[in-house]
Amino acid sequence: MLQKLKNYLEEFDRFAKKNEMQIDEVAEGYAKTSMVVKDFHLNGANVVHGGAIFTLADFAFAIASNSHGRIALSINSSISFISSAKEGEKLIAIAKEVDLSHKLGTYNVEVKNESGKIIASFLGTVYRKSDEIKL
Amino acid sequence: MLQKLKNYLEEFDRFAKKNEMQIDEVAEGYAKTSMVVKDFHLNGANVVHGGAIFTLADFAFAIASNSHGRIALSINSSISFISSAKEGEKLIAIAKEVDLSHKLGTYNVEVKNESGKIIASFLGTVYRKSDEIKL
Amino acid sequence: MLQKLKNYLEEFDRFAKKNEMQIDEVAEGYAKTSMVVKDFHLNGANVVHGGAIFTLADFAFAIASNSHGRIALSINSSISFISSAKEGEKLIAIAKEVDLSHKLGTYNVEVKNESGKIIASFLGTVYRKSDEIKL
Amino acid sequence: MLQKLKNYLEEFDRFAKKNEMQIDEVAEGYAKTSMVVKDFHLNGANVVHGGAIFTLADFAFAIASNSHGRIALSINSSISFISSAKEGEKLIAIAKEVDLSHKLGTYNVEVKNESGKIIASFLGTVYRKSDEIKL
Repeated sequence: MLQKLKNYLEEFDRFAKKNEMQIDEVAEGYAKTSMVVKDFHLNGANVVHGGAIFTLADFAFAIASNSHGRIALSINSSISFISSAKEGEKLIAIAKEVDLSHKLGTYNVEVKNESGKIIASFLGTVYRKSDEIKL
Repeated sequence: MLQKLKNYLEEFDRFAKKNEMQIDEVAEGYAKTSMVVKDFHLNGANVVHGGAIFTLADFAFAIASNSHGRIALSINSSISFISSAKEGEKLIAIAKEVDLSHKLGTYNVEVKNESGKIIASFLGTVYRKSDEIKL
Repeated sequence: MLQKLKNYLEEFDRFAKKNEMQIDEVAEGYAKTSMVVKDFHLNGANVVHGGAIFTLADFAFAIASNSHGRIALSINSSISFISSAKEGEKLIAIAKEVDLSHKLGTYNVEVKNESGKIIASFLGTVYRKSDEIKL
Repeated sequence: MLQKLKNYLEEFDRFAKKNEMQIDEVAEGYAKTSMVVKDFHLNGANVVHGGAIFTLADFAFAIASNSHGRIALSINSSISFISSAKEGEKLIAIAKEVDLSHKLGTYNVEVKNESGKIIASFLGTVYRKSDEIKL
């Protein structure tokens, strides 16, 4: 199931794909995504766009929260932008489950660069539908 | 200055550009951005990716908070995802200033579709540097 | 029902009561609460404690989200602290419904002082149980 | 300095004092606070009020962020409410520094009960003034 979810999202998460974000690891309640900062990820100040950082974190969050086989929809996320990142840097997002109940799940995602400098911290909540994911 | 800022960001906010988001209006402490949902904005569930919605809101927030001529950096944002949106829908983000002090600014952004249905609500804070924006 | 909810919470929301917060108005999807800042609301810096401001906002949020007669539980809130407030000031929190769906509700709360200066902006989400409120 | 800060806040953080919250540990960038849930901490649903949980977390956050000797003001916090807690339970909040820069600090706070069940997760940002704390 986890490998199938990974394969499915690599193909059908088109926004992640277009923006060259990849899935590195998936486990129950856990996911790791990454991207190498390209010119097209930058904003007008020549650093990575907050939207690109959020998307990378949200992507890891979505995978981790859907890893249990039931559809999980993001309700709310809060992100703190801590350091900026430049072209050429590799950014890695790791999503970990803080809590899982029948209807809700809470996840923390940290985005770091390759030297371990923290770029952003993200806290998100999903609503878990009763429907199973069909792949 | 506002027209120059708009022109500059239309050219140099490369992440917004790649993802086909546009600036519709800019005023002091205010901005409106929009996008038409394309296939590449979708996630694995066939609805707009949270990262795309966040980016559209963050883009409006960045313009509104930089509209006073001093560099404003996003510190923190919280986003509630309220309704999903599909391919073909037009999404509009309107950023309004809640408060502006010497060092900080707070903005509310609402993302709606063309019929006025709310898609997401966003609350963000910037740190205002002393440096002026040079365009 | 709304009057009953107000009476019930005035008596049984013991944390609000102990901290001298009151309910001024209740309507469907709407509530207004207030407090006059006393010495016991202050923190070590001699201004109102963030926890007191949050509690006032959260109280309005809880009333507004439970006003439809079904039990609503707070999942997540984000608060931006904009101005500080001092002893003697009256603080007013107004909660408005941003969106209501079958299972979720989203509310914006603004906390202002009597002269209309904004103190804090709050965005919160509830999970709506199927159980009706019995008073 | 840390012991002095602890003594000072135990006396002068009047909102924490009134609501019987105590400081258990203080270190650079770190703090631990706790409370035993009393009847006056409850809301109308007979569980701990979200405002009490927030206040306990915010108190740990304030201590951790002021532990470096410069005045730190809370700008924004996001809290996810994960499990409810009842009268008689002891709640413990631990604040850890995620990042510290010249002007800003980011902190994660986890609130648990004594058996380690997570009650809430909190992410907060402070603005660091240049003024030193004088005790």
